[in-house]
Amino acid sequence: MLKAAMRTLAAAATAATLAFPAEAKPVEAKPVEAKPVETRQGPDISHFTLANGLEVVVIPDHRVPVVTHMIWYRVGAADEQRGKSGIAHFLEHLMFKGTEANPAGVFSSIVAEVGGQENAFTSNDYTSYFQRVARDELETMMRLEADRMTGLQLTDEVVLPERDVVLEERRMRTDNDPAAQLGEEMASSLFRNHPYGVPVIGWEQEIKALGRQDALAFYRRFYTPNNAILVVAGDVAADEVRTLAERTYGKIAPRAEVAPRVRPAEPPPRASRVVTLADPRVAQPSIQRQYLVPSYSRAAPREAEALDVLAHVLGGGQTSRLHRKLVVDRKLATSASAWYHGSAYDETRFGVWASPRPDVSLDDLEAAIDAVLADLIETGISDDELVRAKTRLVAETVYAQDSQTALARIYGVALTTGSSIEDVRAWPDRVKAVSAAEVQAAARKWLDMRRAVTGRLVKAPPPGEKRS
Amino acid sequence: MLKAAMRTLAAAATAATLAFPAEAKPVEAKPVEAKPVETRQGPDISHFTLANGLEVVVIPDHRVPVVTHMIWYRVGAADEQRGKSGIAHFLEHLMFKGTEANPAGVFSSIVAEVGGQENAFTSNDYTSYFQRVARDELETMMRLEADRMTGLQLTDEVVLPERDVVLEERRMRTDNDPAAQLGEEMASSLFRNHPYGVPVIGWEQEIKALGRQDALAFYRRFYTPNNAILVVAGDVAADEVRTLAERTYGKIAPRAEVAPRVRPAEPPPRASRVVTLADPRVAQPSIQRQYLVPSYSRAAPREAEALDVLAHVLGGGQTSRLHRKLVVDRKLATSASAWYHGSAYDETRFGVWASPRPDVSLDDLEAAIDAVLADLIETGISDDELVRAKTRLVAETVYAQDSQTALARIYGVALTTGSSIEDVRAWPDRVKAVSAAEVQAAARKWLDMRRAVTGRLVKAPPPGEKRS
Repeated sequence: MLKAAMRTLAAAATAATLAFPAEAKPVEAKPVEAKPVETRQGPDISHFTLANGLEVVVIPDHRVPVVTHMIWYRVGAADEQRGKSGIAHFLEHLMFKGTEANPAGVFSSIVAEVGGQENAFTSNDYTSYFQRVARDELETMMRLEADRMTGLQLTDEVVLPERDVVLEERRMRTDNDPAAQLGEEMASSLFRNHPYGVPVIGWEQEIKALGRQDALAFYRRFYTPNNAILVVAGDVAADEVRTLAERTYGKIAPRAEVAPRVRPAEPPPRASRVVTLADPRVAQPSIQRQYLVPSYSRAAPREAEALDVLAHVLGGGQTSRLHRKLVVDRKLATSASAWYHGSAYDETRFGVWASPRPDVSLDDLEAAIDAVLADLIETGISDDELVRAKTRLVAETVYAQDSQTALARIYGVALTTGSSIEDVRAWPDRVKAVSAAEVQAAARKWLDMRRAVTGRLVKAPPPGEKRS
Repeated sequence: MLKAAMRTLAAAATAATLAFPAEAKPVEAKPVEAKPVETRQGPDISHFTLANGLEVVVIPDHRVPVVTHMIWYRVGAADEQRGKSGIAHFLEHLMFKGTEANPAGVFSSIVAEVGGQENAFTSNDYTSYFQRVARDELETMMRLEADRMTGLQLTDEVVLPERDVVLEERRMRTDNDPAAQLGEEMASSLFRNHPYGVPVIGWEQEIKALGRQDALAFYRRFYTPNNAILVVAGDVAADEVRTLAERTYGKIAPRAEVAPRVRPAEPPPRASRVVTLADPRVAQPSIQRQYLVPSYSRAAPREAEALDVLAHVLGGGQTSRLHRKLVVDRKLATSASAWYHGSAYDETRFGVWASPRPDVSLDDLEAAIDAVLADLIETGISDDELVRAKTRLVAETVYAQDSQTALARIYGVALTTGSSIEDVRAWPDRVKAVSAAEVQAAARKWLDMRRAVTGRLVKAPPPGEKRS
């Protein structure tokens, strides 16, 4: 029972993060983003490193006697060896299988007994485990998490059934969902060389071939204190966290050298691409466009911020250009949006998305989207739009701070995707400094068809009708 | 001078093979293919293995007192580590840089002095070196080739300038050629996970980072007698070749274990893709379609043969369907063709290609191609077409035997792409056994838009005109 519950929990836990890279979510529906956040009026953050290389971030939040304890590994699906896709996520599942000191179920049942929550997630750039518990339980969480950083025990008896769980997770999430399939196909067309083109959950045929040795090799190489970041947010002081961290994590010797994260880079994009997924199960067709753009960690100064503003001007809410033009004025779309996935270690994606009204063709809708983009590139944005987008963007992120867990997550994501605590601190000022001309320049530079993959989700002809 | 000549020669040598994977060549223009060949009325081939694992194939051809000496390594660009693209081809260049016993230039000048020819080529699946010389020079060639199988000496002084040669080769071949760029983009869209999506010559940014150590590591891992095949064609007997081979190659100890060639596989394709390359330099637009299909080594019995016949029915010469419909009847195209690249170790490509007359749009031309394909899938092919295609296909390959070098190459390619000598022997009979229904079934099964990438090569708008 407990085991089954844990599996469900682990599966649910990874859903949010896994879904993101595969699918073009509109800004509104986006899961909590790793957006740097307004912190100058916010918490007084401490950041230090233990002798074994473990980085520690402490974020005081004394509203309730609760702490969020997170351990972040600087490793994700994009660090996998080719042909072993899915091993980062599979290992995340296997991390719940117990150690000698704390056999399977012990960690989770302690969390459950004290009324806590736990979770884990895997992305392209990081893998993270967290618990939210009463402040007095913090040391216990640290002790248990430190124990499974090196003590994981795996046998085929637990590994092989869990692989079936992951395969079922993939089937549920991708094979049964044409939109998710299109997401995978677009990613593999956009990233021709970089591993962001491989799904985080892995390709089915490769998951099927993963085994105990693969998991242990990945674990030994990447799960080491000098490749991890401890983030504690909550009703706790930095000194106290340091003492507890040294008493628990501090005892772990580094067990692997951490090599620089150099992934195969994208060659200069030269051709525009269109990917069409036709499936009888498609209830609502849609069109989207993804562009290869720099992330926060790869962009020139203020360029990523300009892309964030651009996404809001184009697709952030009811006053955005795409919504006004496509949904309100021309009545071509039922919804339209734009998004920028800025928190990535390497080059990333900017997207626009729209779903047509029943009598509108995807061609007409695409032409209307292109007209909105062309107009913005040619004539730029108004000061009013600029101010509104920046306000919204910063406000959205400040609201996210209200959740202790989201706050902790912002720092974990920043530090595992090439940004610093200082980047997080300075982000609101950088956004405020973005000019209308910079937003226009970013659109002109990056919304280039040679950098783009267009995705078309269409209802397939009924079975029996032939296709050539 | 000699050095410069060698470089030119090495560059020219790789051109034919390198060009193939990147570009959709029509059947007519195809370079000598690794087509299994009619051998039962042909030479009496010997095939044996030395104690160190070196395979030997001897093909008697006593018309002139000449031999073709080829060494084939079971390694190509698709065996490269991700991020190190181009190393197989770069090493091929570096193999001309000399050993302690035979410093740079010695091997080539001996070949030149005796009036011989030499060459080398790299593909996705193999790397090959050959010389064509008077029969009395065979032992010398074996001695020199055996020497450089393990004795290669590389210093940065020779490696770094040669890397510039390769970069220039890439620039000449790809950066200056929009059609070649489209070929690269189509390959990376068709092969989303398998390394056939990476250009044989490598991505520029990765070639730039290759160095001496990369070349030596690749050389030590793959250049070992148990990963090589010696093919000798010409005025020589099998016993004589065996004696000479044992005296030269036979002295080399295996220096690496040869692991099975398991490359990351393609996940099931689900979306149709269109890649458009627009460039002001495009003089003649074209449209092509590539489908992911099984190769000879991956296909069900007679399925690859059926695809070969299908390519001929569709696009083999003036009586083919595409030529008749598009060029002659409807006057939409200036040329049209089809091809099947059957000689590949893993899943491969089937292509159709056409270039429009000046007043014809690519959309209209594509619709006409699709009509030809749909008609074939629906109504099949006539007995007359079947016989003509099979006759042509077998005859083309038999003609290739007239060249001693082409003949030797057929066996080298077969053995390095997962086929056997027996497959080569049996090929004409297998082709003869293909039925019209099997050709139709192959078309129906494999010419599926979900397996396809369509490539559009168009003249870009003049500079200054904006793109969104």
